[in-house]
Amino acid sequence: MERITSLQNARVKAWCRLRQKKERDVQKRFLADGDHLIEEAYTAGILETVITDREEPYRDIETVFVNEAVMHKICGTVSTVHAVGVCQKIETWPEASRRVLILDNVQDPGNVGTLIRTARSFSYDAVYCSADSCDLYNEKTIRSTQGAMFHIPVIYCDIPQLIRELQRDGFTVYSAALDASIPLSEAAEKDKMALILGNEGQGIRKNVQAASNACVRIEMDGFESLNVAVAGGILMYRFRG
Amino acid sequence: MERITSLQNARVKAWCRLRQKKERDVQKRFLADGDHLIEEAYTAGILETVITDREEPYRDIETVFVNEAVMHKICGTVSTVHAVGVCQKIETWPEASRRVLILDNVQDPGNVGTLIRTARSFSYDAVYCSADSCDLYNEKTIRSTQGAMFHIPVIYCDIPQLIRELQRDGFTVYSAALDASIPLSEAAEKDKMALILGNEGQGIRKNVQAASNACVRIEMDGFESLNVAVAGGILMYRFRG
Repeated sequence: MERITSLQNARVKAWCRLRQKKERDVQKRFLADGDHLIEEAYTAGILETVITDREEPYRDIETVFVNEAVMHKICGTVSTVHAVGVCQKIETWPEASRRVLILDNVQDPGNVGTLIRTARSFSYDAVYCSADSCDLYNEKTIRSTQGAMFHIPVIYCDIPQLIRELQRDGFTVYSAALDASIPLSEAAEKDKMALILGNEGQGIRKNVQAASNACVRIEMDGFESLNVAVAGGILMYRFRG
Repeated sequence: MERITSLQNARVKAWCRLRQKKERDVQKRFLADGDHLIEEAYTAGILETVITDREEPYRDIETVFVNEAVMHKICGTVSTVHAVGVCQKIETWPEASRRVLILDNVQDPGNVGTLIRTARSFSYDAVYCSADSCDLYNEKTIRSTQGAMFHIPVIYCDIPQLIRELQRDGFTVYSAALDASIPLSEAAEKDKMALILGNEGQGIRKNVQAASNACVRIEMDGFESLNVAVAGGILMYRFRG
C-alpha cells in the first residue's frame, strides 16, 4: 500500500488540482470528502482511490496513506475530514421519466446541491442543468446533496433543446416565476411534468420561459421573496413523482 | 463628519468586535453589510451609524468615512461592500398572531436566515427560536434573510414554555418529524397554528415534540432527506397566513 508524505508528490498535486472545475473536466475525476460520501461513491461503483491519514485500508479499494500535512493540502484549510475519495465522474441517464427538474443558470452550490437532494426525495427521475449552472462536482454542491447525487442522474445540456424534446415526449413544462399568472394551487398536475427554476438574481431566461408550456407562481403576500431551493421544494412536493 | 484612517482607533475596534455574538449582546448592536441592508435598517428606524469608504454621507445618519484598510478590517477578508451600518438590535413583538414558526436548535445561519425570509413571505406573524439556535445577527443569517428580518419579529425564548402559552391561546402546534404518523396532506389546517422545525442532525428535541399537539411528516419516497429550510418552506406554504 502506497504511503505519501511529500507535498511535492505528483499524485498529491494532481489530486489538489481536482478542486478546480477545469481539472475535473480534464481528469474526469472528482473528490468526495469524508466517510459518508466515500461510502456512497463505493456503492455507486465509482470510487477509485481513498486517501486517508488513518491506518486503515478501505475495503478492496486502493488506499493511500498520507501524513497530516498532505491531508491538509488536499482538504484545504477548513476541512477536518480524515479520508477523501477520488471518484470517476458519474455518467447516468434516466430511463423512462415522469418527473424532471430543470435548472437554468442556478449559481449557488448550496442551492444546486439542495435541489438535487430534494428532487431525489420526491422521486424525480433526473435533474437537467444549463451549461452555465454551478458545477455538480464543486465540493459545496456535493456536500449539499447529502449523497443524493449518487442516486439521481444530473445532466448538463442545452435547455431550449431539452424542452423541445420533452414536449415531443408528452411532457408539460412549467416555469417557476414570481410574476406568473397561474397560481400554483390552480396549476394542473399532469402525467409527465418538467419544472424549471432560474438564476437567484435574474430568474429564468426569457427564451427558456417562452419555450415552456406555462408559468406558475407560488402564492405569497407582501414580501415576495423565496430562496430558489425553497421554491423548488414547494413545487416538487406539489408535483411529486 | 468623522474620518478614521487608523486601524487602532477605538471605534474601529469596537465595530470589529460586533462580529462576535458575545459583543453584540454586550453592545446591543449589530452590523448590516451593504447598501440594501442599510436601507432596510434605516426604514426600520434602527440605523445609528454608516461606515463607508465612499465620499457620500448617508441621509441624515451619522456617516464615518474610513480608508480601504479600515473598511477591510471591519468587513473581514471576503467581503467587497463599501458601506456597513451599525444598528441597534431589533426589539419587536407580534401583536395578534395566527401563524408562528418555532425553531428548536437550528444551527446553520443560512437555514435560519432562509426560514425567516420564507416565514415573512408566507405572512407568518413571528419566528421563535430556542436560546441555543444560531444567532439572528450572525452576518450569514442576516444575508440569508434578504432583509426579511426587518419585517417580522424574531424572538429567542424557552420553547416548552412558549408552546404552553400558545396552546392556552388556542394554537395548534405541529412538530415536523420524518417518522411522524400524520402525512402533511392529511394534517388539518387550523385557525391558529404553530410549526416547529428542529436541528439539522438531531431533529426536534423529545420534550418539545411531546409538548406539541401532533407530529406531521412530509410525504417522501425512498431517499428521505430534506434540508430543514426546504421542509419549512413546504410546511409554511401549506399552512400560509
